Amino acid sequence: MTTRRTWTGRVFIGSSLDGFISRPDGNIDWLTDPAPGPRHASISSTQEVAGWDSFFPSVDHLVMGRGTYEKVLTFDDWPYTGKRVLVMSTTLNTDDARVTVTRDLDEAVEELAASDADQVYVDGGQVIQSFLRADLIDEISIGWAPVLIGSGLPLFGDLDHDVQLELVASNASGGMVHTTYRVHRSQPATGTPSRSSVNH
Amino acid sequence: MTTRRTWTGRVFIGSSLDGFISRPDGNIDWLTDPAPGPRHASISSTQEVAGWDSFFPSVDHLVMGRGTYEKVLTFDDWPYTGKRVLVMSTTLNTDDARVTVTRDLDEAVEELAASDADQVYVDGGQVIQSFLRADLIDEISIGWAPVLIGSGLPLFGDLDHDVQLELVASNASGGMVHTTYRVHRSQPATGTPSRSSVNH
Repeated sequence: MTTRRTWTGRVFIGSSLDGFISRPDGNIDWLTDPAPGPRHASISSTQEVAGWDSFFPSVDHLVMGRGTYEKVLTFDDWPYTGKRVLVMSTTLNTDDARVTVTRDLDEAVEELAASDADQVYVDGGQVIQSFLRADLIDEISIGWAPVLIGSGLPLFGDLDHDVQLELVASNASGGMVHTTYRVHRSQPATGTPSRSSVNH
Repeated sequence: MTTRRTWTGRVFIGSSLDGFISRPDGNIDWLTDPAPGPRHASISSTQEVAGWDSFFPSVDHLVMGRGTYEKVLTFDDWPYTGKRVLVMSTTLNTDDARVTVTRDLDEAVEELAASDADQVYVDGGQVIQSFLRADLIDEISIGWAPVLIGSGLPLFGDLDHDVQLELVASNASGGMVHTTYRVHRSQPATGTPSRSSVNH
């Protein structure tokens, strides 16, 4: 019997307009250090996307791939203090006490359940794609950078079926178009009940 | 010597959020007949994208691929009356007097120059990609449909270099997020002078 999922899977990511989250070598200069020059229109909106400063404090767990984890290790500071961090990797061996390594999706899902996860930040292209395919994503926030980079690591990938989305918010700033969607399910998916039904 | 380009290349297209302009078989049901259910947020914006009703009358020439042309032939009416239509195909033979077949990009560009094109609507994934690679696109308007379809004909493709974009407008309606960009060039590209310099 499938265990009901009690947590919310959330994506919050920047992408080039052609759908890449990094260049082939992992570089995100196009996002963090955009070319100067374009004089982007200033656009206000009645439904602003919640920014990083409200998104990040709202999550309690992170799931990421080895690539994202190793990128973060190059930062001066560990950015996830106070969060439980799962790294999905079939090969990683580490004694880093700040993370829990899970070998596959089932193990990650078990770990999230055991850990009483509530708001789960799902990060990295491959991890996002595998969570989407398993219907474990509920919210997707994307910041579309105003650039085409032509190649790189794709944000999205193959799916077994369409994923219908409900537009929640959209606004633009500094040339970035921010959009937030909820995954729409025609009937509650296995494992995405409201909190009230969990409590029965 | 390169001839200066005197026309504006414009893209106006719908795409799934994962960057496909049709399913693998050409079907665009996800765009024209979206699944009912999602209650999209109503979002107003201070910079609305020009819609089809103002875009289409403003173009004088269309360039499309064989796939788009053959799709249009299945419609009840020819939608391009009053416009000059170029179909890019290496193999198509037709006596359809409503279109001019060009065998490659150079031939299409020559034809546009000879025809005194001004506003050129560039349509279809492969044609858009080849025009982008040749730096022949000046404006890109995309309507992002609120759905992931997982596979299909991609809107964008490989590039030799980044294409910087300037955000011009963005708004949302019915779950679609509409965005318009101008291609940003740090120096005027060969062939994209202002009209005034053309008239010298």
